[in-house]
Amino acid sequence: MPINILFAAQPDQWPTYNAPLKAACAALGLSAHIAQDIPPADVDYIVYAPNSPLKDFTPYTTTKAVLNLWAGVEAIVGNATLTHPLARMVDPGMTQSMAEWVTGHVMRYHLGMDRHIVNPDHQWQPHTPPLANERSVTVLGMGALGAAVGTALARIGFDVHGWSRRPKDIANLTTHHGADGLKAALSHAEILVLLLPNTAATENILDATAMAQLPRGAFVVNPGRGPLIDDTALLDALNTGQIAGATLDVFRIEPLPQEHLFWAHPAVTITPHVAAETRPHTAAQVIAENIRRGEAGEPFLHLVDRATGY
Amino acid sequence: MPINILFAAQPDQWPTYNAPLKAACAALGLSAHIAQDIPPADVDYIVYAPNSPLKDFTPYTTTKAVLNLWAGVEAIVGNATLTHPLARMVDPGMTQSMAEWVTGHVMRYHLGMDRHIVNPDHQWQPHTPPLANERSVTVLGMGALGAAVGTALARIGFDVHGWSRRPKDIANLTTHHGADGLKAALSHAEILVLLLPNTAATENILDATAMAQLPRGAFVVNPGRGPLIDDTALLDALNTGQIAGATLDVFRIEPLPQEHLFWAHPAVTITPHVAAETRPHTAAQVIAENIRRGEAGEPFLHLVDRATGY
Repeated sequence: MPINILFAAQPDQWPTYNAPLKAACAALGLSAHIAQDIPPADVDYIVYAPNSPLKDFTPYTTTKAVLNLWAGVEAIVGNATLTHPLARMVDPGMTQSMAEWVTGHVMRYHLGMDRHIVNPDHQWQPHTPPLANERSVTVLGMGALGAAVGTALARIGFDVHGWSRRPKDIANLTTHHGADGLKAALSHAEILVLLLPNTAATENILDATAMAQLPRGAFVVNPGRGPLIDDTALLDALNTGQIAGATLDVFRIEPLPQEHLFWAHPAVTITPHVAAETRPHTAAQVIAENIRRGEAGEPFLHLVDRATGY
Repeated sequence: MPINILFAAQPDQWPTYNAPLKAACAALGLSAHIAQDIPPADVDYIVYAPNSPLKDFTPYTTTKAVLNLWAGVEAIVGNATLTHPLARMVDPGMTQSMAEWVTGHVMRYHLGMDRHIVNPDHQWQPHTPPLANERSVTVLGMGALGAAVGTALARIGFDVHGWSRRPKDIANLTTHHGADGLKAALSHAEILVLLLPNTAATENILDATAMAQLPRGAFVVNPGRGPLIDDTALLDALNTGQIAGATLDVFRIEPLPQEHLFWAHPAVTITPHVAAETRPHTAAQVIAENIRRGEAGEPFLHLVDRATGY
C-alpha cells in the first residue's frame, strides 16, 4: 500500500514541488502517493504551507505528521486542531540562500558600497573601510539559520557575536545568551542580523531600549521575522542617526503596504521576502527523510516545541 | 651600526608608515634608522612607492634591495637605473582587503541587490537568484591576490574557475592556463574578476574577442589594473547587453577623468581605486621580514622577475 501524502499549499506550488517530492521519496525507497486531494481519513502525512486553505486538522485522525514547507511556523503553531507532530523546514538550500543573502547585504554596509553604486556627482573619493576582523557583527538567533550565517561571516573574517535564549557553543563565534547576554551582544553589533523565530518572547526584541544599546551608527539587517522590530522605534533611531541604515526582508504585513514609512525612508532598503526561499529540490529531500523516519518508527527531525513556539 | 632604510614615497605617507616600520623592525630585532633623507651612498634598503620623486637609482651603489609598498610594479620595472633586487608588496592585509571587496561586489551582482537598493517605484517583486553553487565565477590571474579571491569565493559556494599564464593547482578551484585555457575560462564567467598584473602580455586581454566569449549577460569586476580592459569594447558590449554590468576600481588614468564615458553609463560602477589598500601595519611586517632576510643573507620574498615584468 502506498503512503498517502497530502500536498496542502497554494495550488501554484504544486508544479514546483510535485516532481521533486516524488523523486525524493523514490530515492529513499518509499512507495508514495502524493496528491492535493486525498480523503482526510486516508492521509498518512501532510506536506503543509501555512498559507494553505487547510486550517482544520480535525478530520486527519490517522495522519502521522504535518511537515511544514516553511521555516516559520508562527501562523500554524497556535492552531488548536493541529495536535499531530509538526516539523519545521530546515532546508540546506534555504540555509545556504540565507547565508548568501546576509553575506551580500552585510558586505554592502561593511564596504560602504552605496557611495559608489549611487554616485550622481561622479565623485572620486577614496575611503578605506576597516578589515572584516576589525568589524564586529552580531547575529541574534543561533538556530540552524543563525548559526550558518554567523559561521559564514566568521569565515570571511568578521568578529562575529551570536546570541540565543539558551547557551550555545559554536566554533569561531563569541556566543552570549539570556537577558544579560543580550545587552553585551547588542553592544558589539556594528552590524546586527536578526534571525530569531517569531514568538511572544521575541516580539519587538529590537525596541527603543535595545536600539540604544547598539554602537552609534549601527546597521540592522532583518531576514528573520517582521515583528522582531518595533517599526516606529526603528524609524526614530534612523532619524537620529543611532542606526545608520536598515535592510529589511520581512514585515508585519507582506507585501509591505505602500503607505508604510519604510518605503520612503532613504536609509531603509526593502527586499520582498527573498532572503531564504525554500528550494524545492533540497526541501523535498528533507520531507522524504522525515517520512522515511515516520515509517521506520524513528524520531522525526526538526519537531516544533509547542511550548516555545518554534 | 644601524641599518639605513630610506623611505621614498609621497611625503604624506611618512606619518602613516613611520611608526609601523619602526615597530616591525624592532619586533625582528633589527636596529634600524628609517628616514626620508639619507645620503644615497649610505642607504641599505629603499622602501619605495612608485609615485615617489626618486627616479634615479644610480647613486644607491651599496643598496641591497628596493622594497615596493605597492603590489603593482609596472611604473618602476622598466627603470634602467634600478638594477637592485626589487620586491613587490604582498601584504596579507591588502590580500584580505581585496578578497572582501571582490566578495561584496560579486554578491551584489549574484543576488541582484541593485533592484532593491534603487527602487524608486517601491515595487515588491520577489526574484529568487540561483544559489552560489549554481553560479560560475572566473578569476583571471592566480597570483597571491587572485588565488585568495578565488578561494574566498569558493568558500561561499561559487563554482570558481581560475586562469593563469602557467599551470597552477589551487584547492577548490577549477584552473585553466595559457592561450587555449583562456577561452574555456571566459566561457564559464557569469561573473568575471580581473586580477592580472599589467604587462605587455595582459594589456587589453579583455578585448572585443574575449568579451564575445563570455556568457551573454556576464558581469565584469576589475580590481586589477586599468589597461587589462579595452574601454571602448567594454562600452560596446554593455550597450549590446553582452555584458550586463561592470564594476571598475582601476583605470588607465586615475582619478578617472570626468569626461570618460564610464562615469555616465548606467551599467558601470566606478570605485576610486580602493579595492586593496596597502595596510601599514601588515605591510611594515612584510618589509621588515625582507630586511631581516637581506641582513641574514637569505633570499628575498616576492622578488620581481624582470623578464615577465611582475
